[in-house]
Amino acid sequence: MPPYTRREFLITTSATIALAAFAEPSLSETSMPKLSPAFTTIHETKPLPFDPGKLDGLSEKLIRSHWENNYGGSVKALNTIKQRLVAALDDSALPPFVYNDLKREHLMRTGSVVFHELYFGNLGGSGKPNTSIRKALDEAFGSFDKWEKEFKRMGAGLGGGSGWVVLGYNLHTNLLENYWLSDHLHSPAATLPILVLDMYEHSYQMDYGATATTYVDAFFRNIQWDVVTSRLEKALKIQAI
Amino acid sequence: MPPYTRREFLITTSATIALAAFAEPSLSETSMPKLSPAFTTIHETKPLPFDPGKLDGLSEKLIRSHWENNYGGSVKALNTIKQRLVAALDDSALPPFVYNDLKREHLMRTGSVVFHELYFGNLGGSGKPNTSIRKALDEAFGSFDKWEKEFKRMGAGLGGGSGWVVLGYNLHTNLLENYWLSDHLHSPAATLPILVLDMYEHSYQMDYGATATTYVDAFFRNIQWDVVTSRLEKALKIQAI
Amino acid sequence: MPPYTRREFLITTSATIALAAFAEPSLSETSMPKLSPAFTTIHETKPLPFDPGKLDGLSEKLIRSHWENNYGGSVKALNTIKQRLVAALDDSALPPFVYNDLKREHLMRTGSVVFHELYFGNLGGSGKPNTSIRKALDEAFGSFDKWEKEFKRMGAGLGGGSGWVVLGYNLHTNLLENYWLSDHLHSPAATLPILVLDMYEHSYQMDYGATATTYVDAFFRNIQWDVVTSRLEKALKIQAI
Amino acid sequence: MPPYTRREFLITTSATIALAAFAEPSLSETSMPKLSPAFTTIHETKPLPFDPGKLDGLSEKLIRSHWENNYGGSVKALNTIKQRLVAALDDSALPPFVYNDLKREHLMRTGSVVFHELYFGNLGGSGKPNTSIRKALDEAFGSFDKWEKEFKRMGAGLGGGSGWVVLGYNLHTNLLENYWLSDHLHSPAATLPILVLDMYEHSYQMDYGATATTYVDAFFRNIQWDVVTSRLEKALKIQAI
Repeated sequence: MPPYTRREFLITTSATIALAAFAEPSLSETSMPKLSPAFTTIHETKPLPFDPGKLDGLSEKLIRSHWENNYGGSVKALNTIKQRLVAALDDSALPPFVYNDLKREHLMRTGSVVFHELYFGNLGGSGKPNTSIRKALDEAFGSFDKWEKEFKRMGAGLGGGSGWVVLGYNLHTNLLENYWLSDHLHSPAATLPILVLDMYEHSYQMDYGATATTYVDAFFRNIQWDVVTSRLEKALKIQAI
Repeated sequence: MPPYTRREFLITTSATIALAAFAEPSLSETSMPKLSPAFTTIHETKPLPFDPGKLDGLSEKLIRSHWENNYGGSVKALNTIKQRLVAALDDSALPPFVYNDLKREHLMRTGSVVFHELYFGNLGGSGKPNTSIRKALDEAFGSFDKWEKEFKRMGAGLGGGSGWVVLGYNLHTNLLENYWLSDHLHSPAATLPILVLDMYEHSYQMDYGATATTYVDAFFRNIQWDVVTSRLEKALKIQAI
Repeated sequence: MPPYTRREFLITTSATIALAAFAEPSLSETSMPKLSPAFTTIHETKPLPFDPGKLDGLSEKLIRSHWENNYGGSVKALNTIKQRLVAALDDSALPPFVYNDLKREHLMRTGSVVFHELYFGNLGGSGKPNTSIRKALDEAFGSFDKWEKEFKRMGAGLGGGSGWVVLGYNLHTNLLENYWLSDHLHSPAATLPILVLDMYEHSYQMDYGATATTYVDAFFRNIQWDVVTSRLEKALKIQAI
Repeated sequence: MPPYTRREFLITTSATIALAAFAEPSLSETSMPKLSPAFTTIHETKPLPFDPGKLDGLSEKLIRSHWENNYGGSVKALNTIKQRLVAALDDSALPPFVYNDLKREHLMRTGSVVFHELYFGNLGGSGKPNTSIRKALDEAFGSFDKWEKEFKRMGAGLGGGSGWVVLGYNLHTNLLENYWLSDHLHSPAATLPILVLDMYEHSYQMDYGATATTYVDAFFRNIQWDVVTSRLEKALKIQAI
């Protein structure tokens, strides 16, 4: 798109949504908002939604390093890999299996960016679950305590390695479950993450060394349960669509 | 001249959400549907949504074997692993890393079941994309042809191995993208699959031997685009929540 | 009564090594053979060591397709990726994580080439284990039957997916064990493969569809046990170095 | 083996080797030492071969935590998983895919134990490569510097994630190459590791936070090149067998 700068291009896009909405009547065309470009949409880091100096048992140094280097690094890497994909797609001499090496990195960095944003997004709270979420976890897991037992056990089992523990609502099976992921490539299919725990060692080594379970306890003291509850409410609204 | 900058557009969106929050009765108390039990909900095989004897270039024998053995096998395995998890969670002598070995299987079988159902669900059609989906893919990928070029190339690159090619709507980044997966554990984070192509060799070896690209062409001739379009419409409605 | 404790035996061994070190002219200067270039050595396909029309229960069509497309494809891909690595190493603008995407492919194709050559190398025999190998497996696994039970069970468990079952001699732990691999990237560390079973679906789908266990039985009827025995003898000689 | 303690059992084993050597003449029986039991051989932690307080730029606290928690934890886990495999193999109700979940853990812990022992084994030196190893790396990589460039770049690319960088001698292809591994399951097929760099974050976070490249530089200052050279000499002797 030579004649536009990126900013101008996005401005035009938004305007087109509004205009299109007036012109056309059928369901799929009225309610379908204009889509952003897959290859050229730039990802930007989202600021921490809490004061990193005020968490309980997770140091400001750890959180800042995690946000800047690990999350921030993945945002940059995702943008880089997408630029390289644009060039690679036009390179007809590139074997498909090499193209896929880049697509693997694209999947991995997407996972890293999304899960990090959700992880930081569910931190900064009091650690006290509200009534709604307790009720939901009681229903899905037999009891809140049983849910917590499984979630923490999975965290403990990932100590010394890498991965995520995700409480997720599976939009296909309609189940609220805990999922084990051992890297950014992993994710439960068709699932909205509700509560996300980072178990890569950069989440805790600086503060806790190898004692991953102590970190998991600290994480629990800082869960922002209202955000978690909102995510679940959204998932349940989706089911009603 | 466009009336909004992108930043203003996003602000408007956020404002609308905030207003809506005041208007609605508290969702969590009135409309939150009861959740199904995570560990004890039994998964059942879903019948093929088309006549397996009538696909173009994919034999009835192949489709029946795929549905019965590979999909059906994963449904059974998912139920089995969930039963074992119930016992394992109560076994306090079981080390967390062994518990996680079962949770890994749980993630893998979940992926297999969900992606297989979506794969069979987007087969049985004419292979002719409708106007809505063409427009959406034009918008997201520059052109429908460019989308198809990437999707098929990724399929070709997975030949001889295992995995899935997934056109998915990422509910976190709001992007419609193609994703490479090399096994059932992989999935783009927070993503609703829109079009799913199985590249495990059981999807084609019986009919096509090692010529994976010929299988991908046959797959395209059988895509049920109306289902694909519905899935995308649902994803876009979710964004408006 | 046994003259040695295990500890004494190990001491003796170590002592012998130490003495040998004095006796020999410095190996590194006299006898260290010239090393081949890592990046530019071209890999060539090795012909099948048996007549593919004469296996019991594995069709010529299957074996030829497997050899030509899957093994042959990996040999070509390995050469391609090494050429790209040469260029990539000189490209200082290439981020290290993208360089590693190519190194991942390099590891994967190396695994595919090596395991395929070992797989075809241990086929073409009578399926009758000789006395030496029976004795070795009796020693390591309690009984030959127990070894076979585990090996076949692992094969069955990989049905419908991908991977290898490897009886390997671990040169670091000095154990002869069965190892599960679910893709070409996997391998037991520091291990000489002794018997290799390909469980990628291209190894059997064409002949057996989804019935992987029947394929495993056919594989056993064609094992070239003398080759397997030679590999083990080599591994054990290495231990004596 | 009820009447024997483990120690007695091993003593008998060693004695049998000696006796058998006298009794039997054929190559495979005379030179083949008795094999240790695959399932019941216990792994024991190996002490650090250097004073952990004396490395240059790697703190004693880091090294002790790494050795005790991450390496030591894997030794324990490997013994645990092998005990569970013994029980699992006799459990005919256990589906093969669940059996394989344990075999995957077995592979992973084997990789962790072996690579950690080799990693600590190539630390504690002056960081000054001797003439023999420089010559070998010159031959294989064009120049020592080119080898170092690739090895360090691979390390940098693994920062923030997990894995190993391995200079390995492939006993099947007869090549000395650098290999990328992103977890303990990975390994180049049929390869003797020569120099091993741990890139799991527990190797450096405590001292260096997210600056993985500074850790890699520190690692280089402590390489025990004589051990590396011995490993390569062994690999080359093997080729001559």
